[in-house]
Amino acid sequence: MTILEIIEKKKNKKILTKEEINFWIEGMLKGEIADYQVSSLLMAIVLNGMEKEEIFYLTDAMINSGDKIDLSAIDGTKVDKHSTGGVGDKVTLILAPLLASFGLKVAKMSGRGLGHTGGTVDKLESIPGYRVELSREEFVNQVNKVGVSVISQSGNLVPADKKLYALRDVTGTVDSIPLIASSIMSKKIASGADLIFIDVKVGNGALMKTIDSARELAHTMIEIGNQYKKKTICILTNMEEPLGFAIGNSLEVKESMNALKGMGPEDVMELIIKTAGLIVSSVEEIELEEAEQQCFKKFNTGAAYEKFEEMVKAQGGDLEKLEISNRIFSVRSAKAGYITHIDALGLGEIARKIGAGRLQKEDKIHYQVGLLLNHKVGDFIEVNEELLKVYLDDIDVKVNDILDCFTIEDEPIEKAPLIYEIIK
Amino acid sequence: MTILEIIEKKKNKKILTKEEINFWIEGMLKGEIADYQVSSLLMAIVLNGMEKEEIFYLTDAMINSGDKIDLSAIDGTKVDKHSTGGVGDKVTLILAPLLASFGLKVAKMSGRGLGHTGGTVDKLESIPGYRVELSREEFVNQVNKVGVSVISQSGNLVPADKKLYALRDVTGTVDSIPLIASSIMSKKIASGADLIFIDVKVGNGALMKTIDSARELAHTMIEIGNQYKKKTICILTNMEEPLGFAIGNSLEVKESMNALKGMGPEDVMELIIKTAGLIVSSVEEIELEEAEQQCFKKFNTGAAYEKFEEMVKAQGGDLEKLEISNRIFSVRSAKAGYITHIDALGLGEIARKIGAGRLQKEDKIHYQVGLLLNHKVGDFIEVNEELLKVYLDDIDVKVNDILDCFTIEDEPIEKAPLIYEIIK
Repeated sequence: MTILEIIEKKKNKKILTKEEINFWIEGMLKGEIADYQVSSLLMAIVLNGMEKEEIFYLTDAMINSGDKIDLSAIDGTKVDKHSTGGVGDKVTLILAPLLASFGLKVAKMSGRGLGHTGGTVDKLESIPGYRVELSREEFVNQVNKVGVSVISQSGNLVPADKKLYALRDVTGTVDSIPLIASSIMSKKIASGADLIFIDVKVGNGALMKTIDSARELAHTMIEIGNQYKKKTICILTNMEEPLGFAIGNSLEVKESMNALKGMGPEDVMELIIKTAGLIVSSVEEIELEEAEQQCFKKFNTGAAYEKFEEMVKAQGGDLEKLEISNRIFSVRSAKAGYITHIDALGLGEIARKIGAGRLQKEDKIHYQVGLLLNHKVGDFIEVNEELLKVYLDDIDVKVNDILDCFTIEDEPIEKAPLIYEIIK
Repeated sequence: MTILEIIEKKKNKKILTKEEINFWIEGMLKGEIADYQVSSLLMAIVLNGMEKEEIFYLTDAMINSGDKIDLSAIDGTKVDKHSTGGVGDKVTLILAPLLASFGLKVAKMSGRGLGHTGGTVDKLESIPGYRVELSREEFVNQVNKVGVSVISQSGNLVPADKKLYALRDVTGTVDSIPLIASSIMSKKIASGADLIFIDVKVGNGALMKTIDSARELAHTMIEIGNQYKKKTICILTNMEEPLGFAIGNSLEVKESMNALKGMGPEDVMELIIKTAGLIVSSVEEIELEEAEQQCFKKFNTGAAYEKFEEMVKAQGGDLEKLEISNRIFSVRSAKAGYITHIDALGLGEIARKIGAGRLQKEDKIHYQVGLLLNHKVGDFIEVNEELLKVYLDDIDVKVNDILDCFTIEDEPIEKAPLIYEIIK
């Protein structure tokens, strides 16, 4: 067997065997297969696709490439959640403590910011003192005691994905359902949870541009989950505008804290309630509506917020010290009209540039900078009314770049729903 | 402009601009674009193809990547010839002096053996003393004086092709008509000839497996030639069995010397007469039949052979010293019947293994070894009759491997023609 034969097979739309996929993944990690051979194969996969069985073999080879997290020392149902990446997506910060307040166990490993999308680990690090790196033992102990811990992904979890992802990022081979599904699911399965919930973002600012492709990705991930006897639920949500009002690390933590008290932006609350409702109803075997009602209660009684405080404290964080920049400027609308579009990708890029994200891997994050919108798509805005506030540190920003992210028109539009579909 | 945008475009079946193709080729040669990015783009080209204009831009970028040979100091019509690669293909050795005997100018740069196919330069080096490396001045002077010179390709002729070819070879991206056509034609055009003749081999032992794909390649190359106002003629020929009887360097020189006297194998003579006839009739503007008749005369009067001797002598070669191994063994048929197939690829590989070619770039060639067939497809053979002779040096060979290259059956087959089509 040679990698050249494997490339030729995929180029000719043949189905790769388990042995061939293992040969590729193992050879790649051992450095026996060159990057230029892997990227040629990846492009052939992007263009010629993969059958279900090949996707299963690939996911399995990736899972077996590194550590598998054993959560058996944690009592109760372990739930995990993933988002395919959006702008202003602070769902994990809210959802994890909320689920823990139900008695579910959330042993969650999260990533850092990538491209124009933020990362949960970066957001948590904006809380002074918060430790994202716990030992395996500390992690398990905290989940058993508090019910929730969010840490950064273990160094040797699915190294094959780390390698492939870095290569895909620079060779135009990101947008492939087999590659995305195996990448996400290999990490979720290696992380050891019983129930996996995936928020598939759809729209211009997301990896999946259409509902059809998002649906196909969801079905593929659910089938992979089924192979490993993991209950897998997917939700397809709109990523045409940012989620909530806040973009940027400590700004998003603040918004999440409000949401945990039941006072978050409408879209954030809707998504959280639906997500938590689906998970709780599945685990507790109760009706969705009943589960959603219980979520409201967790907010109103303060149970959800207390769980968040408990988690932050257990990991060394001090919420009192959370800071937001006081160099603020206000961007106002030059015209009156209805906001018909807010460019999530564009605002994400601006936030990244002013320091909320990284342009290069080694860049340091400016936790206290970001954008805080005043409006959402569908709102009417007056001339000179504030569109958003920009929280700056030492990196400047062009106002026109920000204004270009907003489309304001005379006629209102019918707004697309936030939640398109639930697939399970 | 980034290479990632270019890859994305080709992945999405968009047409690349001249600027984008130049950016790719220049960036690749400067080392600014990584091999893994080039190979991903190459696979996208293999699978999504290229429009005519893209192929022209690519060819042009490749030509401009290195030296262009200026043949303007040579009087008369300069002709060049290329074969896409076959086993036992000694056409250049015969054709070049034959054309020179007509007064045409043949300033030919040839390559070395590649894979299972031999190379003209290696064959010429089997003549003791023959210098394949001449200075530009020596080369031009010899062509002006003798009418013909065959040397090895200049170091800096189309370096982009050298780089791309090496990468294509190890990334499963060889079989693409746009890539093959631009690779061949960039070298031919940079070599400076007025008339370009290409022998497109078709069959199992060739790059083009079907007449349809060979025809498409031919049309593409002719269109490229037209762009540069180069008269381009293609011939589609059968490469299901080796050409002639001899495979191996000095054996092929011997066979070529016989052919130059009009006494070569039937298929070799047919191909040479047709090729030379087409070139001469095109340059001299006479009928093909008339041109073919004149070819016979050049053989019969000794004019063609004398031109060969003259060329070899001018480049320092001594035909008296040409040697063939005297360690010969005879492979005989185990059964009687009609030879219905001779595996050109298989015999080419065997010749390579016994030293007629290279397994690795730095291997030394054993010039005096090779295979000499007694029969062609369609012949009847008796039990124990000699199939071929093997000329060995110090590397042994398995007789069964050789016998496996011959299919002998009870019923005769209808033999495919040697020349399928002429396209101009």
